[in-house]
Amino acid sequence: MSKAIFYHAGCPVCVDAEQMILDYLDKSKTTTEVVHLGNDQSRIEEAEKVGVKSVPALVIDGNVYHINFGASLADVKG
Amino acid sequence: MSKAIFYHAGCPVCVDAEQMILDYLDKSKTTTEVVHLGNDQSRIEEAEKVGVKSVPALVIDGNVYHINFGASLADVKG
Repeated sequence: MSKAIFYHAGCPVCVDAEQMILDYLDKSKTTTEVVHLGNDQSRIEEAEKVGVKSVPALVIDGNVYHINFGASLADVKG
Repeated sequence: MSKAIFYHAGCPVCVDAEQMILDYLDKSKTTTEVVHLGNDQSRIEEAEKVGVKSVPALVIDGNVYHINFGASLADVKG
């Protein structure tokens, strides 16, 4: 079972992408965790380490997929 | 059943994203078509009309998700 983590920050671009991820990701192949970096700033460092540069971003087994562009991590740190 | 179209141009970023799409998109909810715009330039106009700005891009029921950044459509037209 793969592990997918969707990092977002609550912006409209993020919410739109989140819907796609939750609707269309194959739940038989992966478990999905949604992390709101705006609310949970303690996980920003973890996101940066794995290579997340902006949100929304989907990380599956360590591979980072930036989806559209909502905000940079620098902006999320605000 | 939704319809997902993955537009790409054969670049490494595209190929990497394609693997994720083909592996993790829920086949019970969507059919997936892969369009190589480098080989099939006749479909660039269609991609532009739906809002694709760069590849790789995933379009599900008209919603465009740009995944990472491989090349702009202008570059694909080359």
